[in-house]
Amino acid sequence: MRRATIRDVAAAAGVSIGTASKALNGQGKLRAETRERVAAAAQELGFAPNTLAQALLAGRSYTVGLITTDSFGRFSIPVMLGAEDALGIGQISVFMCDTRDDPEREERYVEMLAARRVDGLIVAGRRIEPRAPVRTGPGIPVVYAMTQPANGHGPAVLPDDEGGGRLAAEHLLAIGRRRIAHITGPERFLNARLRARGFAAALLAAGVEPCGHTRYGEWTERWGREAAGQLLADRPDAIFCGSDQIARGVADTLRAVGRRIPEDVALVGFDNWAPMALGALPPLTSVDMCLEEVGRVAAGYLLAGISGDPAHGVHTVPCRLVVRESSGG
Amino acid sequence: MRRATIRDVAAAAGVSIGTASKALNGQGKLRAETRERVAAAAQELGFAPNTLAQALLAGRSYTVGLITTDSFGRFSIPVMLGAEDALGIGQISVFMCDTRDDPEREERYVEMLAARRVDGLIVAGRRIEPRAPVRTGPGIPVVYAMTQPANGHGPAVLPDDEGGGRLAAEHLLAIGRRRIAHITGPERFLNARLRARGFAAALLAAGVEPCGHTRYGEWTERWGREAAGQLLADRPDAIFCGSDQIARGVADTLRAVGRRIPEDVALVGFDNWAPMALGALPPLTSVDMCLEEVGRVAAGYLLAGISGDPAHGVHTVPCRLVVRESSGG
Repeated sequence: MRRATIRDVAAAAGVSIGTASKALNGQGKLRAETRERVAAAAQELGFAPNTLAQALLAGRSYTVGLITTDSFGRFSIPVMLGAEDALGIGQISVFMCDTRDDPEREERYVEMLAARRVDGLIVAGRRIEPRAPVRTGPGIPVVYAMTQPANGHGPAVLPDDEGGGRLAAEHLLAIGRRRIAHITGPERFLNARLRARGFAAALLAAGVEPCGHTRYGEWTERWGREAAGQLLADRPDAIFCGSDQIARGVADTLRAVGRRIPEDVALVGFDNWAPMALGALPPLTSVDMCLEEVGRVAAGYLLAGISGDPAHGVHTVPCRLVVRESSGG
Repeated sequence: MRRATIRDVAAAAGVSIGTASKALNGQGKLRAETRERVAAAAQELGFAPNTLAQALLAGRSYTVGLITTDSFGRFSIPVMLGAEDALGIGQISVFMCDTRDDPEREERYVEMLAARRVDGLIVAGRRIEPRAPVRTGPGIPVVYAMTQPANGHGPAVLPDDEGGGRLAAEHLLAIGRRRIAHITGPERFLNARLRARGFAAALLAAGVEPCGHTRYGEWTERWGREAAGQLLADRPDAIFCGSDQIARGVADTLRAVGRRIPEDVALVGFDNWAPMALGALPPLTSVDMCLEEVGRVAAGYLLAGISGDPAHGVHTVPCRLVVRESSGG
């Protein structure tokens, strides 16, 4: 079960996030009735204000750096939003730096952040393989989010890609599909391999043969269209796709040859990226990586590290399946 | 003509952005030959290091706040990248704050940034109508990007939406289309109205009647599919869409009824959002708002304001048209 956030408290009390935060922190000018309503909602939801964040109110710069390589913000913005939540709205501020995948630029940013005496660093990125660790001076804890350091030290927070692949397969099995194919991105991406592994494990556990081999390719709609064309002869009754973009390409090909979605072929995507998943025809069932939760957990480990209680190793955040029309709803 | 950036200099000299920056700033350990190559490239391209940024090296916090309401990062990340460029890599650092469209949350962030003694603020946002101005203390200049304050004071930097609509219409006229329709987002969005106005003005100037009235609706693929269905009876030979998502929906409907793109109906989108425009079938001709340039220009005005030379009013950055298969290429 997800931990209640200040957003949940605000919604339950019928106030804005800012008001809820003021009420809980005893700040600002609010009516007593409002404070009480927020406090009641917080208690009912079991909301715990972040005491670690509060404990840091001594001798720190109250800033952290967020270094990202994701120029589109597709993955890093939700991670940042989750981190902001965990760091307390405005209590700890975030320097955001985009390296554009340039190692020298990254090095300069790390130097700059150290010179600014940040309390810690979150390094976010799109994963291919584990990356070179960031070198900071002593006393600056680092947490990786959506990526992991090659030395294995961590701490790193990743979505549970393998579990996500399993969720997709179990859903398609549960709605009665038995000829399930898998089309995904490039094999050099660790997340593509993990999703394929979870998918295969779930089929194996159910005693169901996969429909053809895993088709590795690109993270594009074009690849989805092409791979679906190759697969049609195998007569799949479901296709699990490694991204929503691949799933949209698959849907184009199915529509072009007159196969109905989901009646003839059920489709599941991955990412639950709103503009892609909701805009699809029909809207896509998709695996959601809960990126905000990844950011919240990473920020939590960072706060622990700043307080002298560092975490180690790789931590995964469970994915969740969002069911829409493409798999029967 | 676009001003040369450090990125252009780096590309021309065959080095990374970090190396080019070090070479131009006389920092770091580099071979003399590398420094000379970068200097030569900078001279050839007429690259002017940002002297305003350098002039600030006295008595400042060298931080600026970027306040955004765009939780998807779709618009704010490119604006931030452009601003980073203009602020010098790591010379002035950016506090990024996402208000999630909550006015109280915005107020708290502004207070926090003032307490941190930022040198200035960039307020980025998606535009509907002019927004309430941000209230900062005296001495903290504010520049708006992708949005504008209702009091008209500015300075605000916006893409030239009207010019973008004109570009789209002129392109479709130039490839010989005469029955050109327009489908766009909600009429309450200023940018939808401006794009429609530029489109209509270009047709009028060419003495061509628009094919039906402007169809205002939503920024969604679903609306594109629906509106295209309504339009078919008018037999358009081209459709200009207010977003790439609308254009994709239109393409779905055209394909479903057997109209070829671009032979029977040419399509132009707006945003040039890579995953949408490139993934479409066929890839979309689209109007690009040059968001990084919007960010660079906004940061330039902010630096001027910090140096005591504030800009006023609304400034627009020209759009550019990117031609792909959906309009004949």
